[in-house]
Amino acid sequence: MDAQNKYMIEAISEAKAAAARGEIPVGAVLVNGLTGEVVARSGNQTETWRDPTAHAEIIVLQEGGKIYDAPRLPDCDLYVSLEPCAMCAAAISFARIRRLYFGAYDPKGGGVDHGGKFYGQPTCHHAPEVYGGIHEQECAAILKDFFKDRR
Amino acid sequence: MDAQNKYMIEAISEAKAAAARGEIPVGAVLVNGLTGEVVARSGNQTETWRDPTAHAEIIVLQEGGKIYDAPRLPDCDLYVSLEPCAMCAAAISFARIRRLYFGAYDPKGGGVDHGGKFYGQPTCHHAPEVYGGIHEQECAAILKDFFKDRR
Repeated sequence: MDAQNKYMIEAISEAKAAAARGEIPVGAVLVNGLTGEVVARSGNQTETWRDPTAHAEIIVLQEGGKIYDAPRLPDCDLYVSLEPCAMCAAAISFARIRRLYFGAYDPKGGGVDHGGKFYGQPTCHHAPEVYGGIHEQECAAILKDFFKDRR
Repeated sequence: MDAQNKYMIEAISEAKAAAARGEIPVGAVLVNGLTGEVVARSGNQTETWRDPTAHAEIIVLQEGGKIYDAPRLPDCDLYVSLEPCAMCAAAISFARIRRLYFGAYDPKGGGVDHGGKFYGQPTCHHAPEVYGGIHEQECAAILKDFFKDRR
């Protein structure tokens, strides 16, 4: 199994754990791209933490900053089960993440390939390399099942 | 002095305190729009906290969520000395902020009137009322002086 799959499967596992907490099931894994070491992993915590900003991506970027004692993480790659929203897309840019891998595309709320497409804006000063659609069907199914169960 | 000015002057004071810490001088004040009570105030803490997401707006939204024990703050208004970036614009939307007042416009990094203009995107599901240019010159001067001193 190549590394790309391994880390996305970890992100999917975080997404499933988030669903079990009643959170929108999105998971993220921050990886040191040079060593392959997992730096931080999380699912969404918005409802549990009562924090509108507590998306999985934001949480692992904050943890990564603490771990490396730096607000910029240029050697790190990020794996997310869903296309990041505008908030997270910009945070990923500010953190100087090297590569972004995501699972499902998000036409309703995505900010990378949808909406403002932040990385293509003149107001974006660092864009990661982006690889979308990794384990896309499984990542999308977790979300679909979650919302189906709630309706 | 009307309330709009009073709170923006508090945001400016937070921006100046941020400059003194070596942070990009932006300040934010979260206000309960129904009572007029200041809920949280902060300047940027990106460098100090080693946190790529620690913009003033993110910090006061996180504090507001804790204080009201809710990830959505529909009675709250936000005063910021600079046009929010894409990350903060989206976070403000997720927090269901009622009104956004900002000082200086930010053509290089703004996400409200520049870049992806998040509140006009179909991926944006709540837009605050937006009032830009409040104490614009003073807010812009703090940033200009900060970068002049660093060059």
